[in-house]
Amino acid sequence: ADQVAVDGAAARNGQLTKPPGALGRLEDLALWLAGWQGTDRPRIVAPQIVIFAGNHGICAQGVSAFPAEVTAQMVGNFQGGGAAINQLAKACGARLDVVPLDLDTPTQDFTQGPAMTEAEVVAALAAGWDAVDPATDLLVVGEMGIGNTTSAAAIAHALYGGSPAAWTGRGTGVDDAGLARKTDVVARGLGANPAAGTDALQALRCLGGREVAAMAGAIARARVDGIPVILDGFICCAAAATLAAAVPGALDHAVAGHQSAEAAHATLLDRLGKPPLLQLGLRLGEGSGAALAISIVKAAAACHSDMATFAEAAVSAG
Amino acid sequence: ADQVAVDGAAARNGQLTKPPGALGRLEDLALWLAGWQGTDRPRIVAPQIVIFAGNHGICAQGVSAFPAEVTAQMVGNFQGGGAAINQLAKACGARLDVVPLDLDTPTQDFTQGPAMTEAEVVAALAAGWDAVDPATDLLVVGEMGIGNTTSAAAIAHALYGGSPAAWTGRGTGVDDAGLARKTDVVARGLGANPAAGTDALQALRCLGGREVAAMAGAIARARVDGIPVILDGFICCAAAATLAAAVPGALDHAVAGHQSAEAAHATLLDRLGKPPLLQLGLRLGEGSGAALAISIVKAAAACHSDMATFAEAAVSAG
Repeated sequence: ADQVAVDGAAARNGQLTKPPGALGRLEDLALWLAGWQGTDRPRIVAPQIVIFAGNHGICAQGVSAFPAEVTAQMVGNFQGGGAAINQLAKACGARLDVVPLDLDTPTQDFTQGPAMTEAEVVAALAAGWDAVDPATDLLVVGEMGIGNTTSAAAIAHALYGGSPAAWTGRGTGVDDAGLARKTDVVARGLGANPAAGTDALQALRCLGGREVAAMAGAIARARVDGIPVILDGFICCAAAATLAAAVPGALDHAVAGHQSAEAAHATLLDRLGKPPLLQLGLRLGEGSGAALAISIVKAAAACHSDMATFAEAAVSAG
Repeated sequence: ADQVAVDGAAARNGQLTKPPGALGRLEDLALWLAGWQGTDRPRIVAPQIVIFAGNHGICAQGVSAFPAEVTAQMVGNFQGGGAAINQLAKACGARLDVVPLDLDTPTQDFTQGPAMTEAEVVAALAAGWDAVDPATDLLVVGEMGIGNTTSAAAIAHALYGGSPAAWTGRGTGVDDAGLARKTDVVARGLGANPAAGTDALQALRCLGGREVAAMAGAIARARVDGIPVILDGFICCAAAATLAAAVPGALDHAVAGHQSAEAAHATLLDRLGKPPLLQLGLRLGEGSGAALAISIVKAAAACHSDMATFAEAAVSAG
């Protein structure tokens, strides 16, 4: 981030026609944007949402309330404009891209060994990297992949330890028996992939999925290009967490868009040190919570960059 | 609210391409809008923000960090497009109206007797009533009035009891001595106006201000016309609380847009039974927190009314 721009934005912020600090977190967001955009007047004019989709071998173990074919069906729904994320993208003026990743070839069941080969995870990372529009000024990555809360829980468990049950939630809505199966799969995943417990990128390869790795690739690309990112829910944050564990500062360009209703997301946000902007009980995926937060970040930039100063408006500064 | 429309919207909600409940509070908002718009497919196309401004006799007691002339200066800033609310209105596509109320004639100092005469409070209520565009489909009322957190604290204290200190905060940023003066003014306000302790509309007249009464008038008009309202911060909620205390159900058409950083706002929202949509540490007034929430409510309507059903998108319902 550009400290000169941050300092310039902080000076401007102090002159705007409002009591000091009265815009709360909007002021923090404006300074954060200033640093990554390298200007004391940041603007959001070309936000991009990318949804990655992948299928998971662990679905065979009955970890989801929905059948695996829903992944491809929902990709069709995204392409047809009928999903929640389509409406949310339109509402905030964001470009929406959909990137299905080898849906006919699920990852391997990670209770039996690595979910992906080295070549497969690299291809998925590259797909994520390539999906980022270099001209975007705010990036959201979302996902669709039946079974992927189980994958995300296994990654979080590998990165941070604790009990498998603490990281495992109901996802799209499994019952008690399904939750017990998920928890068991999370526990067995780390047992079958010991390298995942010592190397974050091995956790991504062995316990992740193509869409999870692609999210990590896109977030890494944004970091290199200096594009601010809004993180979405539990799965997005699990992908992001592998980057943070691998490279300190890898998520400096990212804020948390929301805290999802998936129980372990709050813990994961805490581990990442990212307080959420929104807490509206969403647990949909698709980048939906982060997409909702685009409007908040846009508003922060608009207030900061377009408000009058005390001098400009001839208002007494108190 | 129209229960047939709510039931129709609930049925539609259950068929949309998402796991049940996965859009969290957005689903609640959609059903609430459906009831007030009388349709199972609510839409927000003409949101309106009205800012009322008034001056307060209690400013003479040193209750604010800003001089009273800032009220009129900020009205000029609103009219010139330079304030935060101008940027927020533009960002969410809302019409913004500014209604200054006799700024050259502050209310009376309520530590000496009623802030307003019967005629004055009725005129302010009517100004609020008349400011609502009958064609709007979502209303936000905001305020500008140096000294009005003291007025709001006095109203809340009169309505709900408790200690004056528990309702009194730093507003635009008074120091410890200023906070002590405000708390004393709140305590003396009720002492000088005993009728305010037994009649909510007398609390509005005796301890409120013109802009506070106008907000109450606008919220009441929206209730009568069936227009959904997003409540803003502490002052807006104090105005709304007088209606709720006077007429049960008077705020059924309203949701809380945000929880402000003004400490007593959380308590006031709790008294009103309105959980906030946003908690971003704002304490600006001007309707700013509620204006930010317009985007959330619009997104809720868009998801509900424009998403495909499982049947339309040929997605398996799990």
